[in-house]
Amino acid sequence: MIPRYSRPEMTTIWEPETRFQIWFEIEAHAMDALADLGVVPKDAAKAVWERGGFDVARIDEIEREVKHDVIAFLTSLAEHVGEEARFVHQGMTSSDVLDTCFNVQLVRAADLLIADLDALLVAIKRRALEHKMTPTMGRSHGIHAEPTTFGLKLAQAYAEFERCRARMVAAREEVATCAISGAVGTFANIDPRVEEHVAKAMGLTAEPVSTQVIPRDRHAMYFATLGVIASSVERLAVEIRHLQRTEVLEAEEYFSPGQKGSSAMPHKRNPVLTENLTGLARLVRGYSIPAMENVALWHERDISHSSVERMIGPDATVTLDFALVRLTGVIDKLLIYPERMQKNLDKMGGLIHSQRVLLALTQAGVSREDSYRLVQRNAMKVWDSDGQLQLLDLLKADPDVTARLSNAELENLFDLGYHFKHVDTIFRRVFGE
Amino acid sequence: MIPRYSRPEMTTIWEPETRFQIWFEIEAHAMDALADLGVVPKDAAKAVWERGGFDVARIDEIEREVKHDVIAFLTSLAEHVGEEARFVHQGMTSSDVLDTCFNVQLVRAADLLIADLDALLVAIKRRALEHKMTPTMGRSHGIHAEPTTFGLKLAQAYAEFERCRARMVAAREEVATCAISGAVGTFANIDPRVEEHVAKAMGLTAEPVSTQVIPRDRHAMYFATLGVIASSVERLAVEIRHLQRTEVLEAEEYFSPGQKGSSAMPHKRNPVLTENLTGLARLVRGYSIPAMENVALWHERDISHSSVERMIGPDATVTLDFALVRLTGVIDKLLIYPERMQKNLDKMGGLIHSQRVLLALTQAGVSREDSYRLVQRNAMKVWDSDGQLQLLDLLKADPDVTARLSNAELENLFDLGYHFKHVDTIFRRVFGE
Amino acid sequence: MIPRYSRPEMTTIWEPETRFQIWFEIEAHAMDALADLGVVPKDAAKAVWERGGFDVARIDEIEREVKHDVIAFLTSLAEHVGEEARFVHQGMTSSDVLDTCFNVQLVRAADLLIADLDALLVAIKRRALEHKMTPTMGRSHGIHAEPTTFGLKLAQAYAEFERCRARMVAAREEVATCAISGAVGTFANIDPRVEEHVAKAMGLTAEPVSTQVIPRDRHAMYFATLGVIASSVERLAVEIRHLQRTEVLEAEEYFSPGQKGSSAMPHKRNPVLTENLTGLARLVRGYSIPAMENVALWHERDISHSSVERMIGPDATVTLDFALVRLTGVIDKLLIYPERMQKNLDKMGGLIHSQRVLLALTQAGVSREDSYRLVQRNAMKVWDSDGQLQLLDLLKADPDVTARLSNAELENLFDLGYHFKHVDTIFRRVFGE
Amino acid sequence: MIPRYSRPEMTTIWEPETRFQIWFEIEAHAMDALADLGVVPKDAAKAVWERGGFDVARIDEIEREVKHDVIAFLTSLAEHVGEEARFVHQGMTSSDVLDTCFNVQLVRAADLLIADLDALLVAIKRRALEHKMTPTMGRSHGIHAEPTTFGLKLAQAYAEFERCRARMVAAREEVATCAISGAVGTFANIDPRVEEHVAKAMGLTAEPVSTQVIPRDRHAMYFATLGVIASSVERLAVEIRHLQRTEVLEAEEYFSPGQKGSSAMPHKRNPVLTENLTGLARLVRGYSIPAMENVALWHERDISHSSVERMIGPDATVTLDFALVRLTGVIDKLLIYPERMQKNLDKMGGLIHSQRVLLALTQAGVSREDSYRLVQRNAMKVWDSDGQLQLLDLLKADPDVTARLSNAELENLFDLGYHFKHVDTIFRRVFGE
Repeated sequence: MIPRYSRPEMTTIWEPETRFQIWFEIEAHAMDALADLGVVPKDAAKAVWERGGFDVARIDEIEREVKHDVIAFLTSLAEHVGEEARFVHQGMTSSDVLDTCFNVQLVRAADLLIADLDALLVAIKRRALEHKMTPTMGRSHGIHAEPTTFGLKLAQAYAEFERCRARMVAAREEVATCAISGAVGTFANIDPRVEEHVAKAMGLTAEPVSTQVIPRDRHAMYFATLGVIASSVERLAVEIRHLQRTEVLEAEEYFSPGQKGSSAMPHKRNPVLTENLTGLARLVRGYSIPAMENVALWHERDISHSSVERMIGPDATVTLDFALVRLTGVIDKLLIYPERMQKNLDKMGGLIHSQRVLLALTQAGVSREDSYRLVQRNAMKVWDSDGQLQLLDLLKADPDVTARLSNAELENLFDLGYHFKHVDTIFRRVFGE
Repeated sequence: MIPRYSRPEMTTIWEPETRFQIWFEIEAHAMDALADLGVVPKDAAKAVWERGGFDVARIDEIEREVKHDVIAFLTSLAEHVGEEARFVHQGMTSSDVLDTCFNVQLVRAADLLIADLDALLVAIKRRALEHKMTPTMGRSHGIHAEPTTFGLKLAQAYAEFERCRARMVAAREEVATCAISGAVGTFANIDPRVEEHVAKAMGLTAEPVSTQVIPRDRHAMYFATLGVIASSVERLAVEIRHLQRTEVLEAEEYFSPGQKGSSAMPHKRNPVLTENLTGLARLVRGYSIPAMENVALWHERDISHSSVERMIGPDATVTLDFALVRLTGVIDKLLIYPERMQKNLDKMGGLIHSQRVLLALTQAGVSREDSYRLVQRNAMKVWDSDGQLQLLDLLKADPDVTARLSNAELENLFDLGYHFKHVDTIFRRVFGE
Repeated sequence: MIPRYSRPEMTTIWEPETRFQIWFEIEAHAMDALADLGVVPKDAAKAVWERGGFDVARIDEIEREVKHDVIAFLTSLAEHVGEEARFVHQGMTSSDVLDTCFNVQLVRAADLLIADLDALLVAIKRRALEHKMTPTMGRSHGIHAEPTTFGLKLAQAYAEFERCRARMVAAREEVATCAISGAVGTFANIDPRVEEHVAKAMGLTAEPVSTQVIPRDRHAMYFATLGVIASSVERLAVEIRHLQRTEVLEAEEYFSPGQKGSSAMPHKRNPVLTENLTGLARLVRGYSIPAMENVALWHERDISHSSVERMIGPDATVTLDFALVRLTGVIDKLLIYPERMQKNLDKMGGLIHSQRVLLALTQAGVSREDSYRLVQRNAMKVWDSDGQLQLLDLLKADPDVTARLSNAELENLFDLGYHFKHVDTIFRRVFGE
Repeated sequence: MIPRYSRPEMTTIWEPETRFQIWFEIEAHAMDALADLGVVPKDAAKAVWERGGFDVARIDEIEREVKHDVIAFLTSLAEHVGEEARFVHQGMTSSDVLDTCFNVQLVRAADLLIADLDALLVAIKRRALEHKMTPTMGRSHGIHAEPTTFGLKLAQAYAEFERCRARMVAAREEVATCAISGAVGTFANIDPRVEEHVAKAMGLTAEPVSTQVIPRDRHAMYFATLGVIASSVERLAVEIRHLQRTEVLEAEEYFSPGQKGSSAMPHKRNPVLTENLTGLARLVRGYSIPAMENVALWHERDISHSSVERMIGPDATVTLDFALVRLTGVIDKLLIYPERMQKNLDKMGGLIHSQRVLLALTQAGVSREDSYRLVQRNAMKVWDSDGQLQLLDLLKADPDVTARLSNAELENLFDLGYHFKHVDTIFRRVFGE
C-alpha cells in the first residue's frame, strides 16, 4: 500500500483512528450486554459511552512499554473513562477485540469493493451497448479468427465482473463474523449473549465456534477471492494493451492534453494505465498465498497470522480498490476506433470466412476432410500473399470448389452480418434486456 | 498426481477413456439438437449414437500426425460412424468440446470432493460427540492457556469443514457451464439452442457469453477453493501432529500391527499420515497460483491455459481427494488419551485458572491493573517452579489477595467444570442439536 | 508430469528402478567404507556388490505390509544378498539413503537441464548471428519506439539464458550433497568417514551438518531457480507469440505440412508451441512456493516435505526439461520475415526517428522543452493520420523547425543505419567475439 | 512495509529523497562522460554538479501535470541548474535512470541484509559454542529420536544462514548492473562509454544487453532469494516456538520486565517474536511470485513491472531486514534451559537408546529383522507405560536379549556421551575451527 496506488476511501478503513474507534465500539457494546446481564453496573456501561475515548499517540506510548496493543488501548481508554473502566473488557481476551475489528474492516473494505465493481459494471455496460454492433476482429492465439463485435467483447467482461461481484459478496459474508468468546473460545468468563449482542450491533453474525481467534479459513477465502478478481482485472487490462498495439490500434487509453508518453520519444502514447493494472493484479494475486498459509494456526491459536494481516489487509484491499477504480476510468474514457477495426477485418483477404466455406462444402456433399483440404489450400495462398490475394477470388478459380458452389453461393458466404445474428441473444443473456 | 497419493475413483475421471467418452456424448447430444433444428439429417444423429465410438490408441496415432487432439478424435469417430460422420461437429470448434468436457470433469471431481467432505464431517462429528466433555488443555502460542474440551476442538474442525463443503458446492456451481458457441463465441455457425440442449443433457447450464473458451475466472475460483480447503486439511493435520508430540501425547494416529516407524529406531510411532497431509496441502495450495494466471488469456482465447489444466486438473483434485479420505481415516481411528490430557491440565500448578482469579479480584474491587499485577507475581513463581508450586497455595499465602478473597472463594475459582458450562451452547450452534 | 510434456531422458531419472539402483549404490558404497573401517566384514561388502539386487514388484509387496519403503527395499536386497545382508544399512537411517538419493536425482536432472540450456544457447546464437543486422521495430508498451535488429532481440535472450545456465549450475551445486549421519545427524552409530566415502563415490560432497535430513533450504533454492528459468522461457515465448500476431507477423513458429491449426478454421496458423510454453512456465513457477514451504521442518525433521518432493521433484524438472527442448526447437525452426519487419518499420510515417530530431533541435540551441513540443506537434499529426503523413515532410514544412535545421540536416536524421552503429559492441559483450 | 516491521536503515533506501539523489548522481555522472566525449559542454557537466539539486514537493507538483516522474524530476533539476540543463539526459531514456536507480537501491538493501546475516551468524555461533555439548533431545516427527546437543541444533542453523549469506551475495551480484542504453537499448543516441562510466561511478557493472529496461530475470532471482532466506528464518523461528511449548520448555524468548503476555491470562509467556517471524516469512515468500511474473515483459519493455516493484522493492527488503534483526535479538537473548533438556531426555525410559541396542544385537549375530523385533517388543512396553518402565530393565529381563548381550554390555549401550563423540568433527566442518 503506497499513496500512488491508494484511495483515501479505502486507506481510511486501515488507519489507527478507525481501528481504535472500532475497538471502542466493540468494548462499549459488550459493556451494554454485560450490564444487561448484571455482570457490570449499568452506570459503568453508560460511562464508557459518555466519557469513553482514546488517544492514538498515548496508545503508542503505552504500547512501547507493555508491548501489547490492546492493553495499551484499554489503558488509554481507562484514562478517559475513569474508575468504571475496570469493568471494561471483562471476561474478554484481546483477540475478541482484534479479530472482530479486523472483520469489521474487511467487511467495510468489501462494501467499497462491491461499490467499485458496481461502478465498473455501469461503465462496461454503457460502452458495450454503445458498441453492441461494431464489427471487430475476433482473435484466437493472437491470430485473426472470425468476426465478432466490440460490444460482445465488453459483454464478456461484464459477465465476468458480475461473477466477481457475486464472489465479493460471498467473500464479505465469509468474514462478517464476530467472536467474543474468551481465552480459548469456551465463554468461560463471558456469556455467549454478549457475543450475540456485539455481533448484531456491529453488523456481523456470531462465530459459531471460535478458539480465541476467528478461524482463518474465512480470511483465506476472502483474500483468494481478491486474487481471482485481480486476475479478471488483468484480463481486461491485457485486452486493452493488445488493442492499443501500434499494429492493431483498435482502442486506446484516453491521452490527456499535457501528458507525455516518453521523455525521449515525443510521439509515444502508451497504455500505461492498463500495464499498471497488470502489475497490480500480480500483487493482489500474490497475497493469496500467505493468506492461505495463515489457516493452520497452532492449537487454539498462534499469532503468526497477525503480521501477515497487518500487511495484506490494507495492501490487498487498497490495491484492488485502486485497480478497480482505475479500470473503470479506463473503460469510461476508452478511445474506440471502429474504422480501424474494419480495416483490420479487411486485412486478411477474406480468410475470416474460411470456416463458413468449409461448412458450405460439407453441406454440398463434400466430406469434412476434403472440404478442409480444399479450403486450406486456397487459404494458405492468401495467407502467404499477406492479404494481397482475396480468398473469394481464389475459390471462384478453384474448379474443385466451383464444382459444388456457384459464384453467387460463394459470394453469399462472405457476408459479415451473418456473424452477428445472435448478438441480441447474447446481450439478453448478459444484460437481461 | 502419482499412484501413491491417488484413489481410482478420482483418477478415473481424468483418464483418456473418460475424456473421449464425454467428448462423444457432447458431439452426440449436439447432433440431436442439430437434427431437431433441421441442420443435419436425423439419421446422422441416430448413426452417431448407434455406431459411434472411438479407439484411444487410434486417436493417439492420428494425433501424432495432425497434432490436434479433437481432429484426431473426430477422425477416429468417423471411422466408426461412417459417412454420416461428416455432419458431426458441424459449426462447432474444438474448444466447444474441450471446455465443456473439462467442466464436466471438474463437476464430477467436485461431486467426489463433496462426498469426501461429507464422510469427513461424519467422522469428525462422531469423535466430537464422543469427546464432547473430555477436558483438555487449550493452548495459545503453544502455551497452556485455559481448559477446553476435546469435543470443542473437533467441533471447530467440523464447522470449518462445513464451510469448506459450502465453498466446494459454490466452486462446483462456478464451473458447471457448457459452451457450444463456435470459433469466437458468436454462434455464427451454430444455433444457441444446441448449446442449451447439450448443457441440459450434460447436467450443466449454458455459459452466458463465451469467446471460443469458457472464461477462466471460473476455474481460478475453483482451484483457489481447493487451495483454501487444503489449508483447512493442513490445520487439522498440524493439530494432530502437535497432539502426538512425545511431550504432549494426547492423541495418536492409529499404529497398525506390523507397521514400522523407523528403520533405525524400533520405538518410534510417528504422525506420518498427518505430516503427509501437511505436504499435500502445500501442493494443492500451490496450484492456485497458475490457475489464477490462466485467467488473462489473450483476446478471444489463447491456449496457454491448456498445459496448466492438463496438469493441475488431475493433480489438484486427485491430491485433495486423497488427502480428505486420508484425513477421514486418521480422525476415524485416532487414538485419544483423556488421562494424558488430564495430566497435562494438571501440569502447570493451576496457572490455567489465572484469568478467573484476575476477574474475581476486579469484581472484588481491585483495579484491573492491580489485579493483573497481583496474579502475575504469583503466576510467575509457579511458572518458574516448572509446575512444582501450586498457584492456589501461593494465592492463599498472599495477603494482598486474601484481603479480598477468602480461601473458600479462591478454591472455588479453581473448578474445571466452570469452563465447560457453554459447551452445550456451542455444540448446538455447530451441530444444530 | 504427464507423457505429453515429458521426455524419457528426464522421466528415467524418476523411475522406481533408477531410485532403487541409486539406493543400492549408496548402501553398497557405505558397506565398502564400513568394511575399511572394520565395522563390517570385507566379505559382506563384497557380497553386496556381487549378489546384491532388488525386485521392484517385491519391494512394492513388502511395502504394503510394513508401510516403509526403505525397510521394504532392504528386505528385498537381503533376499538377494543372503545372510551378509544383516550388515547392510548399519548405523544408517532411512533418510541417509532417501535424501542422498533425491540429491543424486536432482543433480542428474540439473545436468540434463544444463545440457538443455546449452542446446538452447546454440540455437539462439545461430539465429542471432544470422539476423544480427536485420532491422526490426523496437517496441515499448507494445508501441513502436525506435529501430533495433532482430539479432539484438536474440542477443538479449542469449544473455538471459546464459544467466539461467549459471543459476542452474549454482542450483546444482546447492543440492550436490550427501548425508550419512544417522538418526539425528550426530553420527552416533556411523563414522563420518562413511559419509565422505559415499559422497565422493556418488559425485557429491558431504553435508557439513545434517539432522537426519539434508536441510531443505538447498532444495528451495533449487526449485526457486527452476521457477526463475521458467519465467525466462515465458518471456521468449511471449515475444514470439507477439511477433506471430496477424497484424505483426514478423516471425512464426514452423508449421509442418499436415498440421492443422484449427478444426473449424482451415486458415489458422497459431503459435501453439509458445502458448504451451507460457502455460508450462506457470506450472514450474508455481512449484517454487511449496518448495519454500518445505524448509521449516519441525526439529530434526518431519516428513511433510516428502509428499511435496515426490510430486514436484519429477513435475518441475520434467516440465522444465520439456519446455527448454521445445523452446530450442521453436527457435531453431522459427520462420523469420525480414520484409515484414521493414514494412512495419515503415508503417508509422517516420515517427520512429522523432527522438533523433528532438536531440538535433536541442543541439541546435532550442531548449529541451521547446524541442519536445515542436516534435510532438508534428508527430501527433502523423500519428492521427495512421501513417499516411510522413514526419519528415511535416518537419520540412514547420518554420519553427526549419529555422534551426536545414532540409539536408533533417533528411540525415531519418537514416535507419544510425541506430545500428553499436550492434557490434553489444554482440561482443554478449557473445565475446 | 509498515512502521511496526521496519527499521530506518532500510526504509531510508526507499524514500523519495534517496531515489531522487540517486537519479541526480546518475544524470550528473552521465554528463561527465558525455562531456569527456565532447557531446555536451564541460561547463554544463560542471554546472549540474555545482548547482544541481531537486525539490521533492516541486517534483510531485510537476508530476501531477505531466504524469511522468522522470520528466518531473528533470524539470525540477532544470530549475536549479539553469540553461545548461538542456544537455542533461541527452540521448537517455527514463528507464536508464529508473532501472539503474532501482538496482542501486537493491544493492544497498542487499548490503544491509548481508550485514544482518553477519550479525545473525555471530549470535548463532556464540550460542552454539556456549551450548556445544549441552545434551538435548533430538526429535524426528516431533517424537523423541536420539540425543543431540543444543550446540548442534545451532550449528545447523549457522550452516543454513551461511548458505543464505552466500545466496544473498549472489543475488546482489545479479542486480548490480547499470543500463544507459537509450530507448530500445541500441545506444542509438548515446555512446556505450557513458554507460560504462556511470556503472563504475555507481559501483555497478554495465548490463551487457538491455532493451530500454534491465532484464527482470535478475530481479526475479533476487526476490526468490529473499523468499528462500525468509523460509530459513521461519525454520529457526518454528524451532524456537516448539522449544517454548509448555510441555517442552527447553528454551524461551527473553521476556522483559513490564511485558504482558496476555490481556486476560497473567501467567502467559508466549513466543510472540518467533510467531511474528513466521508470519513475516510468509509475506516475503509471497512476494517472489509477482517478481517472477514480472520477467515476461512485452517486446523491448512494458511497464507492468513497475507497480509490482514500487511495492515489493521496499516490502520484501524492509520486512526481511526487520525479520533478520529480530531473529538475531531472539537468538542473542534466548533463555536456554539445560536442566529441562535433561529432564526431557530422561522422560522416555531410555527408548532413545533403542537403535544402539538393535545394532549391538546384529553385531552379536542376530539378524537385522529379529533384532528389530526384539527391541521393538520391549520398546513398545516402555512406550505404553508413558516412561514409567525403563527399557534397560526390560531388556535385562528378556532372555532372547540376554542370550546375546550381558548386563554390563547392555548398560554400556545406555551411555549418553556415546552420541556426542563426533560433535567436534561437525563443529569443525561448520565453524572451521
